[in-house]
Amino acid sequence: MRLFGSVRRTSIELARPLTDADATAQSMPDASPAKWHLAHTTWFFEAMLLQRHVPGYRVFDAHYGYLFNSYYDAVGQRHPRPQRGLLTRPRLQEVYAYRHHVDAALALMMESELPADVLDLIELGCHHEQQHQELFLTDILHLFAQNPLRPAYRAVHPAAWPRAESVDTAFQSFEGGLVDVGHGGGGFAFDSEGPRHRRVIEPFSLATKPVTNRQWLAFMEDGGYRNPLLWLADGWAKAQAEDWSHPLYWEARVGAYWSMTLGGLAPLELDAPVVHVSLFEADAFARWAGARLPTEFEWEVAARDVRIRGNLGAARHWRPQRASDKEPGLQQLYGDVWEWTSSAFAAYPRFTPAEGAVGEYNGKFMSGQFVLRGGSCVTPGGHIRPSYRNFFPPDARWQFSGLRLAKDI
Amino acid sequence: MRLFGSVRRTSIELARPLTDADATAQSMPDASPAKWHLAHTTWFFEAMLLQRHVPGYRVFDAHYGYLFNSYYDAVGQRHPRPQRGLLTRPRLQEVYAYRHHVDAALALMMESELPADVLDLIELGCHHEQQHQELFLTDILHLFAQNPLRPAYRAVHPAAWPRAESVDTAFQSFEGGLVDVGHGGGGFAFDSEGPRHRRVIEPFSLATKPVTNRQWLAFMEDGGYRNPLLWLADGWAKAQAEDWSHPLYWEARVGAYWSMTLGGLAPLELDAPVVHVSLFEADAFARWAGARLPTEFEWEVAARDVRIRGNLGAARHWRPQRASDKEPGLQQLYGDVWEWTSSAFAAYPRFTPAEGAVGEYNGKFMSGQFVLRGGSCVTPGGHIRPSYRNFFPPDARWQFSGLRLAKDI
Amino acid sequence: MRLFGSVRRTSIELARPLTDADATAQSMPDASPAKWHLAHTTWFFEAMLLQRHVPGYRVFDAHYGYLFNSYYDAVGQRHPRPQRGLLTRPRLQEVYAYRHHVDAALALMMESELPADVLDLIELGCHHEQQHQELFLTDILHLFAQNPLRPAYRAVHPAAWPRAESVDTAFQSFEGGLVDVGHGGGGFAFDSEGPRHRRVIEPFSLATKPVTNRQWLAFMEDGGYRNPLLWLADGWAKAQAEDWSHPLYWEARVGAYWSMTLGGLAPLELDAPVVHVSLFEADAFARWAGARLPTEFEWEVAARDVRIRGNLGAARHWRPQRASDKEPGLQQLYGDVWEWTSSAFAAYPRFTPAEGAVGEYNGKFMSGQFVLRGGSCVTPGGHIRPSYRNFFPPDARWQFSGLRLAKDI
Amino acid sequence: MRLFGSVRRTSIELARPLTDADATAQSMPDASPAKWHLAHTTWFFEAMLLQRHVPGYRVFDAHYGYLFNSYYDAVGQRHPRPQRGLLTRPRLQEVYAYRHHVDAALALMMESELPADVLDLIELGCHHEQQHQELFLTDILHLFAQNPLRPAYRAVHPAAWPRAESVDTAFQSFEGGLVDVGHGGGGFAFDSEGPRHRRVIEPFSLATKPVTNRQWLAFMEDGGYRNPLLWLADGWAKAQAEDWSHPLYWEARVGAYWSMTLGGLAPLELDAPVVHVSLFEADAFARWAGARLPTEFEWEVAARDVRIRGNLGAARHWRPQRASDKEPGLQQLYGDVWEWTSSAFAAYPRFTPAEGAVGEYNGKFMSGQFVLRGGSCVTPGGHIRPSYRNFFPPDARWQFSGLRLAKDI
Repeated sequence: MRLFGSVRRTSIELARPLTDADATAQSMPDASPAKWHLAHTTWFFEAMLLQRHVPGYRVFDAHYGYLFNSYYDAVGQRHPRPQRGLLTRPRLQEVYAYRHHVDAALALMMESELPADVLDLIELGCHHEQQHQELFLTDILHLFAQNPLRPAYRAVHPAAWPRAESVDTAFQSFEGGLVDVGHGGGGFAFDSEGPRHRRVIEPFSLATKPVTNRQWLAFMEDGGYRNPLLWLADGWAKAQAEDWSHPLYWEARVGAYWSMTLGGLAPLELDAPVVHVSLFEADAFARWAGARLPTEFEWEVAARDVRIRGNLGAARHWRPQRASDKEPGLQQLYGDVWEWTSSAFAAYPRFTPAEGAVGEYNGKFMSGQFVLRGGSCVTPGGHIRPSYRNFFPPDARWQFSGLRLAKDI
Repeated sequence: MRLFGSVRRTSIELARPLTDADATAQSMPDASPAKWHLAHTTWFFEAMLLQRHVPGYRVFDAHYGYLFNSYYDAVGQRHPRPQRGLLTRPRLQEVYAYRHHVDAALALMMESELPADVLDLIELGCHHEQQHQELFLTDILHLFAQNPLRPAYRAVHPAAWPRAESVDTAFQSFEGGLVDVGHGGGGFAFDSEGPRHRRVIEPFSLATKPVTNRQWLAFMEDGGYRNPLLWLADGWAKAQAEDWSHPLYWEARVGAYWSMTLGGLAPLELDAPVVHVSLFEADAFARWAGARLPTEFEWEVAARDVRIRGNLGAARHWRPQRASDKEPGLQQLYGDVWEWTSSAFAAYPRFTPAEGAVGEYNGKFMSGQFVLRGGSCVTPGGHIRPSYRNFFPPDARWQFSGLRLAKDI
Repeated sequence: MRLFGSVRRTSIELARPLTDADATAQSMPDASPAKWHLAHTTWFFEAMLLQRHVPGYRVFDAHYGYLFNSYYDAVGQRHPRPQRGLLTRPRLQEVYAYRHHVDAALALMMESELPADVLDLIELGCHHEQQHQELFLTDILHLFAQNPLRPAYRAVHPAAWPRAESVDTAFQSFEGGLVDVGHGGGGFAFDSEGPRHRRVIEPFSLATKPVTNRQWLAFMEDGGYRNPLLWLADGWAKAQAEDWSHPLYWEARVGAYWSMTLGGLAPLELDAPVVHVSLFEADAFARWAGARLPTEFEWEVAARDVRIRGNLGAARHWRPQRASDKEPGLQQLYGDVWEWTSSAFAAYPRFTPAEGAVGEYNGKFMSGQFVLRGGSCVTPGGHIRPSYRNFFPPDARWQFSGLRLAKDI
Repeated sequence: MRLFGSVRRTSIELARPLTDADATAQSMPDASPAKWHLAHTTWFFEAMLLQRHVPGYRVFDAHYGYLFNSYYDAVGQRHPRPQRGLLTRPRLQEVYAYRHHVDAALALMMESELPADVLDLIELGCHHEQQHQELFLTDILHLFAQNPLRPAYRAVHPAAWPRAESVDTAFQSFEGGLVDVGHGGGGFAFDSEGPRHRRVIEPFSLATKPVTNRQWLAFMEDGGYRNPLLWLADGWAKAQAEDWSHPLYWEARVGAYWSMTLGGLAPLELDAPVVHVSLFEADAFARWAGARLPTEFEWEVAARDVRIRGNLGAARHWRPQRASDKEPGLQQLYGDVWEWTSSAFAAYPRFTPAEGAVGEYNGKFMSGQFVLRGGSCVTPGGHIRPSYRNFFPPDARWQFSGLRLAKDI
């Protein structure tokens, strides 16, 4: 399976700029160490495939099941999440050896003809690892942002950051009606993207591009972070408790804001989409702007006629080939920032989780989270599609999350 | 306005069994002292009506605005919520004097002909106070449940508790289709109950009665509280952190469970609806039972053909006259327990909050909460209607909350 | 026993200005409700005397042992301290009835001739209750200070507040040498005041009066609360965490500081001793002033030649008859503020706690606390003696605590 | 200065078994990363000596002052202690380069004749680094103990662990009287070890050896961890809150206890001194045993006639050459476990902290800590002397701390 090899190689490539220490530290309970991502994605293949489907398979290390299970209660006990950063052992080299061991066993396994359900699990494992590749980068950025030295992960190709576009924002209208939403079959999708079903949509309009840093500065200068009437109650409480006054990673320097990026501290590009804002901030901004966030269904309906350009079909971390978006219509839907929607992450009608341990994949997170749509500058290309439902709690800021305005019409 | 007098008298009646100390204590940040409820509902009339619409009105006490504002940021600063229980002054008698002062001023005001928007505000104030009447009772129950003496609020008429019904649970089917939901006009409704709009509903079935204590015991005995696979991730974390093993207020005695009630500690009635469970517990129970929670729209569609019986049109706290429910169809929809739905509390399409301070009433709570439908044994009759949307966080247990199962068909 | 009647009456008198609600609320875990003090001191007599020494004694209420035990682990389980404020029942009137029941039983008991150990226990119970009388007042002040209405406990006779004295501060010298310290027998003393033993004292000098508010203002104006070099490490951490910038209860008004007192909010008397400062603040002040706190032994040696004036032999709450201190020598040692010393509260050589439950009285607090000497404006007269060792954690501020400077010579 | 070279080399040797990740992680706020210890001790020399006394000295990195200042408020701002584990950069190799840079500059500096105060500062810096060498090892042990793999720091020579001695415990008597205590001059000592002064000591006896694991097991089996009457109040609260039931690092295996050590998980040696107990536990044990902890002065008086054997004058980490202790008198005073005393860490009479930044070395910790005497199996030999005062909070368990019993006679 070509996807398997490509995904596994990409993870190794992502780790190359890191020291063992970089790969071990955990900057907050919500983030995981890079080494843990590398090991956990490997454990997924070992526990879900090798141990179940390869008779006589010998696990690489009997402790790893405990150390690198993330949240699959069906699979057994696990190490407490907030203490992942204390696992200085196994060493990064040992984790590479673990990956090698599992890769070799899977390669051997794939030489035989495999039943469809096993092939599906391998594909799921690849997509699972791609999700962790994005988290790998968001978590490393968060770690490096805590360090007063503000180290760079690596020199960042400008195209691997949300793109500055100088076009003006306009609103494009969409008719309402009875529409089908959800993944329609054809290609991989996570269970929560379906089943496809019908929704009623009212007529609405959607901004042609995401909210920019320049627009966000106007919100800040107008007192947006100090006016409780703009905020959801929980959002206001959080913003006060944590003293929010700008997006995560912004730093006021003389005369301008800079922001921490994967390439280190850099001056803010005013025409690039704002990034690292929470749902709470996005919602307050929208209210201030006399607009609102779109629902996830409005977003999907609007987006599915937009051609996904560039080399997004392959794992494209750090090798983006994005065509210019300066043609009419919705711009920058994919590959810049995840866009918060006003939709709580919930099951679609007749949703049933997958059988077995992988059934814990999405279903159990259906409380307290909001859906984001699109895909960011660090999202693997294979995860760029109109039906993809990313989800995070409304106070999460360390993802590459921004917003696009919507309006009733 | 007859409603005004009746509502204001009911509050006083509710406070009668309490000492000044009972009315002052606050058992947790989510609950408020009884005295605070009495004063806050009065402040609502003073701040929203008298100060705005009665020239020359003299406030009863200049400090009260600070002390008894709940969450209206537009109206000004307020006393920190977790410290409400330290307000031993004003005395309960002073709060009664405050109520008298405001009631008299409002009575005078109502002698004139009032514009419609002012009348609407008075009506809103009455419904607001009725909501606090229910909270008054849930909060007193919570306070008394913390006291090892387990005091009774007052002798409770059996009918003022979720009713035990020995009929078996069945499932009633409903067709899907395109339906109208939301308040349709005619009579009072909160802003969040509208606008009326269309939804797609899939065919489903709904249990004819709420889940009972007997059924809940079976869930417990089957290890429901110990099996993470039944739970939402946040729910499991909460259940572990707080060591949940049964509904709030249950106490294991030799051979049986008892439960704290407004009438004191009482043996559990096995055929009564389970009450004081969180959304997390309700959801886990439904999964265990091979069912699910209904969406709020399924509930509304199913409920709106059921006749609301009894004397529910009047404030009926403690004077329920519920007819037997032993006729076919859905039972105990109203007047026993609030029923958790799987719907996050969110704005209906084209929802716009009311103008001014009362616009903070519902809109700002549209994150992190779930909708409950129906109405409990302590819900004022005027709040019993199919479109009513109660909402609480998914871990809230001190309300009279239970559940009714749904299934895909 | 005359002391018994007098002490018990004084407690009732102290409670007279309070409502049931005032007497129930608990403003922080370190403070207790007034009602709890009234009941706990009564429980002490019931549990330590009546239940042990009066055959056939019937307890007033079987729950009270659980509710009103403070910390006597030997006597059994107890209600969690931070939840004392939720005990709205028993009512204050019921607590009075409890006191009456126990008083009557003790009066009957005292009609017989009692063995010396029982008489000693009664005396201990009286002194125990006097300690709680002081806490009663410090705790009520703390509660009322949390209320934005700043209610007065009652009109305070000026003499019942630390006295302003306009004399200048001087230092009086004391020779060092081998001295005896500790209670020497004759009259009641707590176990921790003995055994009497020898200490080596170096020559030192002691300020003739406590540090005043005026001096404290100079410390504040000189940046005393902002200079970490003046502070103990734990003190600085606490001061930063809680944002200390002045003594507890001070409030900056236009042009002057006011302070909450038992008589309500009042302008600061500049020549009165500073009060409501922690050991950490006192220690920082002393360092700023080029001095230090005295050890408890220096204090005791210096103080024991000073005549204790006024009607301090009787319970003198609110009836102080303090003679002028304007004669040479140490002023205001007793009856104004407790004076922090640099001595950790520890056992004297050969200290052995009393046998049985009362052995928990002092010994178990011998870690993490510092000794205060003297006695404050709310200290019962019977607790005024040179050997008395009061003790509190170094961050405690709600007691009537101040300081007197010492120096090496 | 020979000491300088020897101390600096020892630190490098201690770090040899560690990966960059091991050297970066921080297992709790009270512990520091190994890399931080290496850099901080270097910063001490740079900030206190090179920057002040070498004209034109160029700091290695301008950020390091912020990153590696521990608690010297006089020297400037510093990185928050609980976030030291996030400093994955600078790399361990860069810290070595920093050490090399500073060592070279100091070597050059020492080629000149230096004034006495500068020489004293260098000596202080060496002793400071030796203190951190001990912390380096206690902190690494704590880190590795959090890892389910229980990694070994390195193979531990049996003599580098508290020694098992099968001799019986006896008590040796000491007369009381007026004694001199404190460092008497001659050789290096920290400021808090003086001034030498007189104390009164009562006659007492001291156990000839520290409490052993075997004796501790008897305490456990007798319910020592479940009986509140044995405990200080703060100790009992802590033991309950953290569920203590045995010393830190013990793990119950089938039939026996094992303990985490620097050599990995190892079976408990029953005749070795108990280690990794808090003052609270030590105090409870002593009470259970009908004894008490000695004061630090009793300990010093008893210890100062005992010959310090072995090669303790040199930095002796991991190269112990301890003679047999099986001669009469006090055994194992030095080189096995630090021994808790009942003395709060406080200033000796006429103590004055050193001038300047190094004045923050000890004085500011004189609240809330208890003195330990002796020296452990990981204490550098140069810190073994009768007057040495180690100090930690009473709940600290991760040091090599045990106890020796004392009695009144």
